Amino acid sequence: MEEKYLLGVDVGGTSVKIGLFTESGQQKEKWSIATNKDNNGEHVLEDIARSIMRKWKEHGLTAADVKGAGIGVPGFVNVNKGMIHFAVNIGWVDYPVTSILSDFLQIPVVLDNDANLAAAGEYWQGAGNDAVDVLVLTLGTGVGGGVIVNGDILHGVSDMAGEIGHVTVIPENGAPCNCGKTGCLETVSSATGMVRMAEEAAEKNPDSMLYIKKQQTPLTAEILFECAAAGDQTADAVIDLSMHYLGMAVGNAANVLNPQKIVIGGGVSAAGERLLTPLRSHYNVHALPKVAEHTAFAAAELGNDAGIIGAAWLAKHKAAADTL
Amino acid sequence: MEEKYLLGVDVGGTSVKIGLFTESGQQKEKWSIATNKDNNGEHVLEDIARSIMRKWKEHGLTAADVKGAGIGVPGFVNVNKGMIHFAVNIGWVDYPVTSILSDFLQIPVVLDNDANLAAAGEYWQGAGNDAVDVLVLTLGTGVGGGVIVNGDILHGVSDMAGEIGHVTVIPENGAPCNCGKTGCLETVSSATGMVRMAEEAAEKNPDSMLYIKKQQTPLTAEILFECAAAGDQTADAVIDLSMHYLGMAVGNAANVLNPQKIVIGGGVSAAGERLLTPLRSHYNVHALPKVAEHTAFAAAELGNDAGIIGAAWLAKHKAAADTL
Repeated sequence: MEEKYLLGVDVGGTSVKIGLFTESGQQKEKWSIATNKDNNGEHVLEDIARSIMRKWKEHGLTAADVKGAGIGVPGFVNVNKGMIHFAVNIGWVDYPVTSILSDFLQIPVVLDNDANLAAAGEYWQGAGNDAVDVLVLTLGTGVGGGVIVNGDILHGVSDMAGEIGHVTVIPENGAPCNCGKTGCLETVSSATGMVRMAEEAAEKNPDSMLYIKKQQTPLTAEILFECAAAGDQTADAVIDLSMHYLGMAVGNAANVLNPQKIVIGGGVSAAGERLLTPLRSHYNVHALPKVAEHTAFAAAELGNDAGIIGAAWLAKHKAAADTL
Repeated sequence: MEEKYLLGVDVGGTSVKIGLFTESGQQKEKWSIATNKDNNGEHVLEDIARSIMRKWKEHGLTAADVKGAGIGVPGFVNVNKGMIHFAVNIGWVDYPVTSILSDFLQIPVVLDNDANLAAAGEYWQGAGNDAVDVLVLTLGTGVGGGVIVNGDILHGVSDMAGEIGHVTVIPENGAPCNCGKTGCLETVSSATGMVRMAEEAAEKNPDSMLYIKKQQTPLTAEILFECAAAGDQTADAVIDLSMHYLGMAVGNAANVLNPQKIVIGGGVSAAGERLLTPLRSHYNVHALPKVAEHTAFAAAELGNDAGIIGAAWLAKHKAAADTL
């Protein structure tokens, strides 16, 4: 039997990334299209389908050559029903994503949320590297989380598993979080949270390099790490405090999950050891010794491609012809 | 094909509980024998085997009638190898439990730790009640934890998953824990931890009922709950603080696991709603709304039998004839 193809689709608020892969996971081509959010995103799936069918034509493929498509969406999903409850960046509310897209393409389509598929991508082809129990955190505007257990995505009863960004790390007087709670990990360990802490620390330390930078330009996580690399103690203390909270949250989660690999993604992960070294040190305070000694930390390797690769993984493992 | 039998064995530091079950889970008989800890527990498995073979004789059974035995042991286990690394209460160090017991009995034997099997027992026949994602906590001398994901025990890379008792809930100046860390959940939400907090609160509140009781008799968790039931505010505040920490730890774990059911066991769970009501209320502060709305809390239902029932579940699902 000839090898079939897989499609991986990663829907974002600005653009949709799409990848065509062989069933063994080799990327044949990747491209992206703009996300048309008119009328609550009613054109998005048709746009995706047309774009995919054009590529099929270019490659001389038909639906019969494709095992299925995986699609990742930011928001609350119902994996079994292939529905998205609410995707704030796109406008979909209780929207049957998989049935619409599979009607267009005439191939099986499987849905999951974008953080879970980024985790699946790193597990399959990135920093996961043969571990079957992997925790993936993406530090960006928020803290996205995905958990791989025994080589499969952990979903829980209402597809909410992996929301480690909303673990409480500051029980009293924590900053408000977008989720409605206060003191969530996301408020202190997302890139956004680190920048907020950096701004506060700069104001309190007018002798710091961070303060001088802040007078010149809006602070970013990159500037924070640059200042720390240049020896600024204020910047260093902000990173250390952020990693204290992240190490505690991840260490606590690891006492429950006992993962072999913890992968840190998002733009901030470009800081590499400057981030992983303090993280590991705080992690070891909170994870039990017999947990910590089996955990390896790594920076994510796939960057923005993690989503389409994870979506292709989903198509490979979950797309079933009988769902058509 | 005729239904076979299952054996469930729960090894404790004082006694070994044993149950004989039908393959569908009906208990035919249960009994216990003393744990002989002489020479680092070298007689324990032989004692278990002899006792089981006597019962087989009484029931007219042979090894051929039995699918397998599950055995739960308190301590660090290697599930795949059937080894116990260290069972402090018995004396076993790097001890090949399953191969020794299956040599005696000539049936497949499967090992897990006692907290995981208590969780499996509640999942199978107790408060789990059809949920396939269940978190079980046993509040006793320590806080034992077991996690059921998709109807199976979550182990992690080194069989340490479920150690929610060692999640850090007091990051600064927490009480020392038996594990070597400080501020673990176990220090404030085990029965032992609650008693320690009750003793401290009694000393600070000489007008309290708790203080008066303490002059008469060593405090216990039962006395703490009795005082609260009788309206003692000091006792009530101790329980509320303990449930604050438990609610935070469990809510944080639930944001990662998204369980359908959270089951609380151990002697303390006899307090029922007096424990579950404040726990639920603190849980709802920390669990995301879309997590919390799908979580049901329940008191454990199987008491001391959870371990042998979970061990029988293990035998039913994991015992394979080809391991003999």
